[in-house]
Amino acid sequence: MTTRREFIEQALVAATLARAPIPSAAKPLGVALVGLGSLSTNQIAPALRKTTNCRLAGIVTGTPAKAARWKAEYGLPDRSVYDYATMERMADNHDIDIVYVVTPNALHAEHTIKAARAGKHVFCEKPMEVSVERCEAMIAACRSAKRQLAVAYRCQFEPHHLECVRIARERVFGPVRMIEAGFGFAIGDPTQWRLNHALSGGGPLMDVGIYALQTARMLAGEEPVAVSAVETKTDPVKFKSVEESMTFQLTFPGGVIADCRTTYKVSGVNRFTAYADRGAFGMEPAYNYSGNRGWRGDRQPLRFDEIDVFAAELDDFAAHVVAGTPSKVSGEEGLRDVRILMAAYESARTGKTVRLA
Amino acid sequence: MTTRREFIEQALVAATLARAPIPSAAKPLGVALVGLGSLSTNQIAPALRKTTNCRLAGIVTGTPAKAARWKAEYGLPDRSVYDYATMERMADNHDIDIVYVVTPNALHAEHTIKAARAGKHVFCEKPMEVSVERCEAMIAACRSAKRQLAVAYRCQFEPHHLECVRIARERVFGPVRMIEAGFGFAIGDPTQWRLNHALSGGGPLMDVGIYALQTARMLAGEEPVAVSAVETKTDPVKFKSVEESMTFQLTFPGGVIADCRTTYKVSGVNRFTAYADRGAFGMEPAYNYSGNRGWRGDRQPLRFDEIDVFAAELDDFAAHVVAGTPSKVSGEEGLRDVRILMAAYESARTGKTVRLA
Repeated sequence: MTTRREFIEQALVAATLARAPIPSAAKPLGVALVGLGSLSTNQIAPALRKTTNCRLAGIVTGTPAKAARWKAEYGLPDRSVYDYATMERMADNHDIDIVYVVTPNALHAEHTIKAARAGKHVFCEKPMEVSVERCEAMIAACRSAKRQLAVAYRCQFEPHHLECVRIARERVFGPVRMIEAGFGFAIGDPTQWRLNHALSGGGPLMDVGIYALQTARMLAGEEPVAVSAVETKTDPVKFKSVEESMTFQLTFPGGVIADCRTTYKVSGVNRFTAYADRGAFGMEPAYNYSGNRGWRGDRQPLRFDEIDVFAAELDDFAAHVVAGTPSKVSGEEGLRDVRILMAAYESARTGKTVRLA
Repeated sequence: MTTRREFIEQALVAATLARAPIPSAAKPLGVALVGLGSLSTNQIAPALRKTTNCRLAGIVTGTPAKAARWKAEYGLPDRSVYDYATMERMADNHDIDIVYVVTPNALHAEHTIKAARAGKHVFCEKPMEVSVERCEAMIAACRSAKRQLAVAYRCQFEPHHLECVRIARERVFGPVRMIEAGFGFAIGDPTQWRLNHALSGGGPLMDVGIYALQTARMLAGEEPVAVSAVETKTDPVKFKSVEESMTFQLTFPGGVIADCRTTYKVSGVNRFTAYADRGAFGMEPAYNYSGNRGWRGDRQPLRFDEIDVFAAELDDFAAHVVAGTPSKVSGEEGLRDVRILMAAYESARTGKTVRLA
């Protein structure tokens, strides 16, 4: 729930953004990608070719070979290719309007704050960061730089997900009472940053459990008041510093109850179901990059054209930057999830239900 | 886990039962139904017509009109028709070998103990009772009377469930790591005993959540070490004395994690999924009296002939009575669940994960 103070702050930010110098809507906004891992390579860069409001205008990478390869493939000028030490120089690069932070979770704040100080709007991968404090610092940095900040919650732009949210909000089957949601997969390479707590801030909960959390919050249409979580581990070598599997339960003020699960141990955990007074609806698979399927009632399929969700979320953010209006996937939205994720870890650690303010 | 003392006790009971006078296997055992509600009327009595080892041989009811109707329909002699005040007289009735207790949860101990003292073997509806102490008293009474006691866990006799247990135990897809299970429905008549805590001992958790618990325990193949649960309520009038909806999480020594849900608020919650290292399997619907469907791997259907699960569980119990061997759905098995159900209520009440001995 938004407090009066938060509401006023948000209104001020919106007003400030509306006054900030805004690039012309006539040409696509330039997007610089920070971190050229597989998500940038296989999803985001191809998606940028499909956007109408954006174009790939720069890169930040610590790997010279990647820099060379991307420069050639995307025809980027030398001055738009940065490493982590030089990225602040993009303050002088008017080709770059938006910085998309695709680095490991625990580097999001550093890269977001650098980008904001360089005068860029920031689109940041989920989870927003590894602590509430860092998320707050990111929000403050963007606010103080009068730049927009949003989090890459692609499901908030996916038509089947949006239809399920509509079914919930419009009470098509009456009020939703119970939600179950899970996302997990068997993780590969044991040396990857996702398994290193210093870089990830946590395991599957941070990485993919957050999708189940988003589903629960979106379908409940309000913020949870309590979370309780448990974790298990069968491979303490691979999962030395992060959880292997976790389940978490959320309760909402209106009485909705959600049970969610996430794992790095087994694949195929990829579904949600909402149970309402006069029927159920859901998705399975729910969280893939494409090929998701939705259903309602007596398993009637939801039929929507496939879209590129990465292109959709980037076009939306660019439109908000141009219009000076706040994105629905704002930094505040990212912070809400991180607060709950941290409470879930606290609950798993203490064995106690954690009340959420 | 069975302690050495329990193991010895169980062995002694088995030996005792083997020496007890046992009715001839040549003719079906006589079953007296205690409590003639809808389950007895619509499921159990029709099933008794299909059994090979049993036959309906008596009734206990507090409603004279029901007594007359059943006597006529099933051709029962006057001496085999009892009310709750006279049921102990069945000690003299050699037509009755087994008493099937189908009364409200909080009357199971009273009726089980009366039946055992009358020298009858006891088959008892789930949940076994409303407290650990009462379950223990039931076990003690049957042991002391040298009679068998079993709990009506019909899913332990249903072919799709049994196949899922086999897939788990034989690790067809590798070890099971994660289980989700839920059973719930929108309850009708607000005056029914199920909504009266004094008679039910609890709401949907006791009544149908127990099926999800059974699934989790059967598929994990071991006993949970901890449970944490939360409940919500949107209709405090209808659900004045029992929970409306509840989710609960179980962790097992081998690292399996289960999240389960139950409700009296919405229908259609009726499913389980087990996620193993190389694939998943499950059932949906899972807990109906008939028409359940199982699947494995890439949604390949499990194909088994429909059986009458009530007939199957009664035939199994009668065979064990005749052979003097313990049923897999023994009183001890019923007690295990009640212990966990009570811990789940404690967790929901205290907001703390409850460790199970």
